[in-house]
Amino acid sequence: MVVNLNGVILPAEEARIPVLDHGLLYGDGLFETLAVREGRFFRLEAHLRRLAEGAGRLELPLPWSPGALAEAVRETARANGVRDGVLRLTVTRGEGPPLPDPSLCAAPSFLVTVRPAGSAPSGRTVSLCAGGAHPRTFIPGLKTLSYLPFQQARQAARQRGFDEGLLVHGDRAVEASTSNLFVVRQGELLTPDLGSGCLAGIGREAVLELAGRAGLAARETEVPLEWLADAEEVFLTSSVSGVVAVIRWEGAPVGSGEPGEVTRRMSAAFEELVRTTSEE
Amino acid sequence: MVVNLNGVILPAEEARIPVLDHGLLYGDGLFETLAVREGRFFRLEAHLRRLAEGAGRLELPLPWSPGALAEAVRETARANGVRDGVLRLTVTRGEGPPLPDPSLCAAPSFLVTVRPAGSAPSGRTVSLCAGGAHPRTFIPGLKTLSYLPFQQARQAARQRGFDEGLLVHGDRAVEASTSNLFVVRQGELLTPDLGSGCLAGIGREAVLELAGRAGLAARETEVPLEWLADAEEVFLTSSVSGVVAVIRWEGAPVGSGEPGEVTRRMSAAFEELVRTTSEE
Repeated sequence: MVVNLNGVILPAEEARIPVLDHGLLYGDGLFETLAVREGRFFRLEAHLRRLAEGAGRLELPLPWSPGALAEAVRETARANGVRDGVLRLTVTRGEGPPLPDPSLCAAPSFLVTVRPAGSAPSGRTVSLCAGGAHPRTFIPGLKTLSYLPFQQARQAARQRGFDEGLLVHGDRAVEASTSNLFVVRQGELLTPDLGSGCLAGIGREAVLELAGRAGLAARETEVPLEWLADAEEVFLTSSVSGVVAVIRWEGAPVGSGEPGEVTRRMSAAFEELVRTTSEE
Repeated sequence: MVVNLNGVILPAEEARIPVLDHGLLYGDGLFETLAVREGRFFRLEAHLRRLAEGAGRLELPLPWSPGALAEAVRETARANGVRDGVLRLTVTRGEGPPLPDPSLCAAPSFLVTVRPAGSAPSGRTVSLCAGGAHPRTFIPGLKTLSYLPFQQARQAARQRGFDEGLLVHGDRAVEASTSNLFVVRQGELLTPDLGSGCLAGIGREAVLELAGRAGLAARETEVPLEWLADAEEVFLTSSVSGVVAVIRWEGAPVGSGEPGEVTRRMSAAFEELVRTTSEE
């Protein structure tokens, strides 16, 4: 595997960052994870826009144009010969003295890594459990390098024998460790609103659009945890894994215990969207 | 400045970590910050114990004995000729594929950095404001590399013209961005209990001991935010900065607006403790 570090392609094992980069010292930075499908990228522009917005909120000045980052993304996928996989674009605050003050840092760095796709994401089913408190702060909704609470939510879920953990705030669902949550209830498609602190997922956005096009009632709202127990269907979304059916919640079957009709329709529509609209 | 990376002393500008270290990719790791005073270390053993406990909670196996880490700490301070300063010991999860799964990572890394002390910490006063929601998760109380919420709390406070931001949970005080909180109210010394999610600060622990020795009533408890408004005194503690008086809370003077008697006694006792009990 080769990576792209600040515009230079080099073998992953030779790519290194300064130990004083605040991305390492304080988890100060952002990342985007996106799907590569048949050599093309799903909603790359939307990912770059979200990255820029997050950088604005963190007052992390990006010295690269979206076009330059897009080119780095393309070049890295090409250099690895990966036509189907998962690509990650990371931006770090840059080097500074070991004090939690970003104004002391020099220039930020970017890193692009890519890995080939594992098993086909569509049609996958998972079991879900409550995985702990969502790390709500006054920087909610950002995909920062301070990612440990999400990693730990997944670890805790796996240790309990589940595939995924749902992060909660009080008695409200927020999001799963690397995906957004959708619930079908009384025929309506519901997802936690952005006020919950969840990530404004690119996959989430796409599913809301697809539901609208399909004439399905869909709504962003507060989602009480108890809705998962009497939901007809539950699924997770991410731009990388697409639509993934949740067939068990805290050990009990969701609906019939099989992916439901809305889930299957949204999954197929999402796959079609990725296949037809990804760009080079 | 030279640093110690996995036992090797080298110039900071040459010290690099692999870009695939999960310390960078996911903020997966821990750190300790400790005071160096006259070439000696304040409660180094307690810091190493807390590091080991945190590593246990994250299932991050440390391949180094506490003695080996202590020697790396000593060697780094010595190699920099720093006799008074601040030393940081960082442990990262290590290299792995870009997936938030720590079980895929190889060996962890450690890093020791040190910087000379700035202005003398004792006698310093700060203004404090409410600085946002504490990132409570099911890994509360750990000083992890996922540090951005704390850095941002301080940034937000500074942008509002305050020195420090207090992280809160609902209407309860938890801790400041890099220090623990103490409030003197009706003659009693009070600090948020560990159930609040605050760090089990080495400085906090020392102040509780010193208060006991001085015959002061001291208690760990829930601290409602409203207590800061009618407190006689408020101060912050950290093993690096010692006892720092809070003289303004949200713009209004705390007590007389000058460091109070308990704060001055605790500050002097803390300085004496550091001076007399730090070890080589």
